[in-house]
Amino acid sequence: MIFSSALIETAVNEFARMPGIGKKTALRLVLHLLKQEPAQVQQFSEAIARMRQQIRFCKLCHNVSDEEICSICASHSRNKTLVCVVENIRDVMAIENTQQYNGVYHVLGGIISPIDGIGPDQLNIHSLVERVQQQEISEVIMALSPTIEGDTTIYYLSKKLQGVPGNPVKITTIARGIAFGGELEYADEMTLARSITNRLPLENYMQK
Amino acid sequence: MIFSSALIETAVNEFARMPGIGKKTALRLVLHLLKQEPAQVQQFSEAIARMRQQIRFCKLCHNVSDEEICSICASHSRNKTLVCVVENIRDVMAIENTQQYNGVYHVLGGIISPIDGIGPDQLNIHSLVERVQQQEISEVIMALSPTIEGDTTIYYLSKKLQGVPGNPVKITTIARGIAFGGELEYADEMTLARSITNRLPLENYMQK
Repeated sequence: MIFSSALIETAVNEFARMPGIGKKTALRLVLHLLKQEPAQVQQFSEAIARMRQQIRFCKLCHNVSDEEICSICASHSRNKTLVCVVENIRDVMAIENTQQYNGVYHVLGGIISPIDGIGPDQLNIHSLVERVQQQEISEVIMALSPTIEGDTTIYYLSKKLQGVPGNPVKITTIARGIAFGGELEYADEMTLARSITNRLPLENYMQK
Repeated sequence: MIFSSALIETAVNEFARMPGIGKKTALRLVLHLLKQEPAQVQQFSEAIARMRQQIRFCKLCHNVSDEEICSICASHSRNKTLVCVVENIRDVMAIENTQQYNGVYHVLGGIISPIDGIGPDQLNIHSLVERVQQQEISEVIMALSPTIEGDTTIYYLSKKLQGVPGNPVKITTIARGIAFGGELEYADEMTLARSITNRLPLENYMQK
């Protein structure tokens, strides 16, 4: 692509580095910004720079945070004895958006995947074991993806947590089954089989 | 969507203002930037701010430019007697990418469209007439979209330019016809009819 301006070329190349944005989309975004007021573009540019410079990770749960302790861990209305273990901060947002969960989180920063060279030492596992040792935690919910790596991580974590001396912590996983609105006949066999094995009393279903 | 960080929320909202980018895509882009080195994100942010602050529009052709006169108008190898009239800077880029055109441009900044409240006064028409009056221009090529608004603009411009005293300037339009690789049977009737009326001698076709 030929640009008559080096300024535009640089901006397009920077946009095109992002996932899912090619040169043509990058150009469209840059031309859109060109039409905006300079002050508005300045605001956009500053929001991005500030976000990356000032963002911190919560000392307790490793979630993104504006402070040393994130707003979830700092909240008095949260149940601190209930810890939900997730892979990344996007999962925290997904669960928060359901507005149904009242406990706190622990962000692993990934899952155990030998094929990608990710072992337990690269993840925030040590700090989870410490939390269970030092704080009063009654239940740890494993909210990891139902893949081989996810199951491996759940197995590894459960062995680690069950080895913590003192009161044994209750370990649970989120329910697997047919999604709401999902068609039974299109569900894979494993999900269908598990959803029959782990069938629920009608009262639970009606509650939703 | 619930964010546990105001910094992230602001950045997502800024991204989501752009055309074709919704909240989910914006979040994906922000999380991608979070994973990058701070220096790289700074570079991205600065490229955008600098582009908007420092960009200028060529005094002659109104194309985007890093200097007072754009690189096309300033080039000695360009034929200054040939002016191609286009709607916007994206059209300049499209024609430049063909690497076939050796003249200069004139960017109107839009086309006449009464329904959108855009009249001749909002466009860079006066400066085009001035160029034809003051410079030695032999031909003006109308490279506007083949729509009603485009045709109206071509008609208006041709009347204006033909009224310029002195040597009459030659006015041409880009060829309409069946696109290369286009199937004849799927072409619309008007394009097909025009492409028969304006048929070319075989020599022209072979040149491409």
